[in-house]
Amino acid sequence: MSKKPLILVTNDDGMFAPGINNLVNVAKQFGEVVVVAPDSPQSAKGHGVTMSLPLRLNKVEVFGPQVEAYECSGTPVDCVKLAKHIILKDRQIDLCLSGINHGSNASINIIYSGTMSAAMEASLEGIPSIGFSLLDYSFDADFYASSHYATRITEYVLKNGIHGCNLLNVNIPKLSMKEIKGIKICRQAEGRWIEEFSEGIDPRNQKYYWLTGRFVIDDHGKDTDIHALESGYVSVVPSMHDLTNYPSIEANAGIEEA
Amino acid sequence: MSKKPLILVTNDDGMFAPGINNLVNVAKQFGEVVVVAPDSPQSAKGHGVTMSLPLRLNKVEVFGPQVEAYECSGTPVDCVKLAKHIILKDRQIDLCLSGINHGSNASINIIYSGTMSAAMEASLEGIPSIGFSLLDYSFDADFYASSHYATRITEYVLKNGIHGCNLLNVNIPKLSMKEIKGIKICRQAEGRWIEEFSEGIDPRNQKYYWLTGRFVIDDHGKDTDIHALESGYVSVVPSMHDLTNYPSIEANAGIEEA
Repeated sequence: MSKKPLILVTNDDGMFAPGINNLVNVAKQFGEVVVVAPDSPQSAKGHGVTMSLPLRLNKVEVFGPQVEAYECSGTPVDCVKLAKHIILKDRQIDLCLSGINHGSNASINIIYSGTMSAAMEASLEGIPSIGFSLLDYSFDADFYASSHYATRITEYVLKNGIHGCNLLNVNIPKLSMKEIKGIKICRQAEGRWIEEFSEGIDPRNQKYYWLTGRFVIDDHGKDTDIHALESGYVSVVPSMHDLTNYPSIEANAGIEEA
Repeated sequence: MSKKPLILVTNDDGMFAPGINNLVNVAKQFGEVVVVAPDSPQSAKGHGVTMSLPLRLNKVEVFGPQVEAYECSGTPVDCVKLAKHIILKDRQIDLCLSGINHGSNASINIIYSGTMSAAMEASLEGIPSIGFSLLDYSFDADFYASSHYATRITEYVLKNGIHGCNLLNVNIPKLSMKEIKGIKICRQAEGRWIEEFSEGIDPRNQKYYWLTGRFVIDDHGKDTDIHALESGYVSVVPSMHDLTNYPSIEANAGIEEA
């Protein structure tokens, strides 16, 4: 009997994004790999779930004959639910890897990210999960350094587990192997998007708004993921799904008498 | 010059859901109300944002001539972004109210919820925000008690603010005014969905999977939102967008040497 770990790989950029191909190659070094990924790009889908439509699963051979792979018509979270409950129903998934995302999921971008929502969904199921993102949006980004660090972190987690939580948000700077200084464990930086909608008139003479914007950081702490990335480090933020602001429970106790 | 607060109202069930109509009536007691809501139901859309498509805004008169209202083609988070940056661009929004959702957003359901994601998006913009949900999925649910408690909590927050965070997750049990015992401030319960996909064959002979499932709570703490609701109280969880698991930073420090 093989004791190779069973690794679920998913993403939000879809089955044909270079990032997931690189992550499958990382995962193949360590265990049996099953891929369930969206059949179309699902960036910024957050923790969306498809409830009002049926979902489709198609078995595909994208990563060679040894990697079982399925494309799914739903969101990244749907992919994880179908992987766990339909494709691998009676098997223990030892690790979920999501990504490698084309673009940053550092700071508050974890909230919007399909990549991180897929990883969080797996972590909610009790599966140790890691989301990887490279700070390069381009389709032909160089995944060499990010694959190297994804390999090291995956190996570490398979050996040591994740302590106190089930979810790591890993971001890799757009730098060469030589330029990256190492790995920093850190907290999520405070940041925000300054939206600027591009307004236009469509061919049928109707007004539209198209979201654009820029990301700003007001948080200058030296213990944040943004600071680590700007300093040339891979950032690792241990993350969770408990959104309770604990100190605020006591601070707002007066509301019970509202 | 009027000093009435400016209140943004949104939801995820769409402009014609009874829940938002009740919430608009709550908000009208306290200030000037602007409504920006999805033009179709957007439940379980999580923190999804529309980036690859243009968005549409239509001014509508749904809540009488005194309430400026817009329907938006996007997600609940898109609604808040458009409200802030297009509709109300130079004005300070004093409060965002989201809901009243038809169905619970207690425990981990905050993660999947369009209602709570809209409120969180406003809180990310620095706007004190409250999401309200009634534990009754039916279209003809009785919103009398939930409107009463939404009024009391809104009044309290307008007077006292929210301390230490910008976001409250309020859930109201499916009980009459007489049966509800009061308000409890609490933490988010640990819970999980046990998914059961319904499998079928469509009219074109293709297999499909349709998400269903049941929610289970393994967390028997007496300080949780679920416990409060089961005991007949309105639950209020002060919530946040920082997903860092702080104790796990130290606990996983070894990863820096991965």
